[in-house]
Amino acid sequence: MKTSQWEDNQLPKLTNAQASLTKIIEVINNLGEKQSLEIPTERALTVYVDKKEIVTLMTLGAYPEWLVLGYLLNQRLINSALELESITVDWEVSAAAVKTYNGIVNLKKKTAKHIVTTGCGQGSMFGNLMDNIADIQLPESTINQSQLYSIVNTIRINDSVYKSAGSVHGCALFEGESMRVFIEDVGRHNALDSIAGWMAIHPEVIHNKVFYTTGRLTSEMIIKAAQMGVPIVISRSGITEMGYYIAQKLNLCAIGRATNKRFFCFTAPDRLVLGF
Amino acid sequence: MKTSQWEDNQLPKLTNAQASLTKIIEVINNLGEKQSLEIPTERALTVYVDKKEIVTLMTLGAYPEWLVLGYLLNQRLINSALELESITVDWEVSAAAVKTYNGIVNLKKKTAKHIVTTGCGQGSMFGNLMDNIADIQLPESTINQSQLYSIVNTIRINDSVYKSAGSVHGCALFEGESMRVFIEDVGRHNALDSIAGWMAIHPEVIHNKVFYTTGRLTSEMIIKAAQMGVPIVISRSGITEMGYYIAQKLNLCAIGRATNKRFFCFTAPDRLVLGF
Repeated sequence: MKTSQWEDNQLPKLTNAQASLTKIIEVINNLGEKQSLEIPTERALTVYVDKKEIVTLMTLGAYPEWLVLGYLLNQRLINSALELESITVDWEVSAAAVKTYNGIVNLKKKTAKHIVTTGCGQGSMFGNLMDNIADIQLPESTINQSQLYSIVNTIRINDSVYKSAGSVHGCALFEGESMRVFIEDVGRHNALDSIAGWMAIHPEVIHNKVFYTTGRLTSEMIIKAAQMGVPIVISRSGITEMGYYIAQKLNLCAIGRATNKRFFCFTAPDRLVLGF
Repeated sequence: MKTSQWEDNQLPKLTNAQASLTKIIEVINNLGEKQSLEIPTERALTVYVDKKEIVTLMTLGAYPEWLVLGYLLNQRLINSALELESITVDWEVSAAAVKTYNGIVNLKKKTAKHIVTTGCGQGSMFGNLMDNIADIQLPESTINQSQLYSIVNTIRINDSVYKSAGSVHGCALFEGESMRVFIEDVGRHNALDSIAGWMAIHPEVIHNKVFYTTGRLTSEMIIKAAQMGVPIVISRSGITEMGYYIAQKLNLCAIGRATNKRFFCFTAPDRLVLGF
């Protein structure tokens, strides 16, 4: 049963321009032998909104339309996918053409501030992202230890570019312990933005949202997860001081170093139900 | 013997505002026990050039003055450290005040284009970085296999925030197999920019430059290394297709997955002398 907030025909029209994600190259190994190696692609995608150039994203190219949509949302350049008529990605010209219904209010002001972030990944936020985090109210959900282990295991056995070619970050959105979407990109912020884009065109309500990332939990990762209404974030890696501070402030449960049966719960331990 | 191209008193005056690099937090582990954990700091540093706000960098804070100087150089906002009178970092206000002698030519134009990169780290380049790479002529130097192993081992035994707190990237500049400077940051591009800053105020000629990074070799990492005149780059991680393509084009020797005695030479194998 679909509980969408709106009809599908209101959603923006998206192309489906997935590009090839890996390439085989020839390398020399430590024994001096030639061997083949699979590496991830990395492409430039310049985003134009109503023909105005906004940004160039460097991406793997798995889900470019979701990436562009999520980018515009996470940068707060738009508030909803419904503001867009279409996103047309054309790899021939490395461009994503975004068509809005009514333009973007204050586009110049919104793109003027320039923050360069620490994150492994896309990195740059058009200022003011921190401004409204105090207003964010995350849902009351919790996670129990067996769900946490189940999520880590689902990622472990999931087929991925990382397994074949390395050098990409993956992230996934879970509903409880059930994986809804898994996305990889050369930058972990691109992967996260793509998930935001996916969410925006799958508007059925997802309860018990849990976000998984292979990347580190820096300030930007925590802020973006919170903006997406995700109260529980699991990472294979660690956390920085500012990520920790913001997660604490938002009562967002940040769990890190999660591999096999090991983890650290950094913040909001009341959201983690220990034991089986 | 110093073979500096200019006198020390011409160099910009720099503060020495190193901040504390780690913080101890209390976490819950998978056994439900409380334990202490060291995490890296992450601070916002807003850069003002002649009182004009340029960018906010998220950084560990180890060498903020070198970071700011290297950032301005790598973004091609300045061509030489000699254009600057001073860089004053004050963590109380999270600001770096840069004073130039004669302003920055075309500042508005240079900061208008906005590229968001894949890199783990600082990520954003003010456009046009790719424009002049065809002009770059890298020095003719090579590396032999034992030097490569020596470099990997030097990094392995080096004291680091990574060892105590994780979640940071490290990079280092070597002269042959001798380590000249090692810098860590929450973003690998910050670490690399800081090395560029260090180089700019240590203008003695360094022969046989080799750059080591724990991070992935994306397009931006290769371009920045090339801009710094480094013909050999070693990484603990892999390479992306665009990093590979640019390294090949520049005849820059990119070596990856370098741990212990294993590695892959991705590009310019003529610069790697195999055997002992």
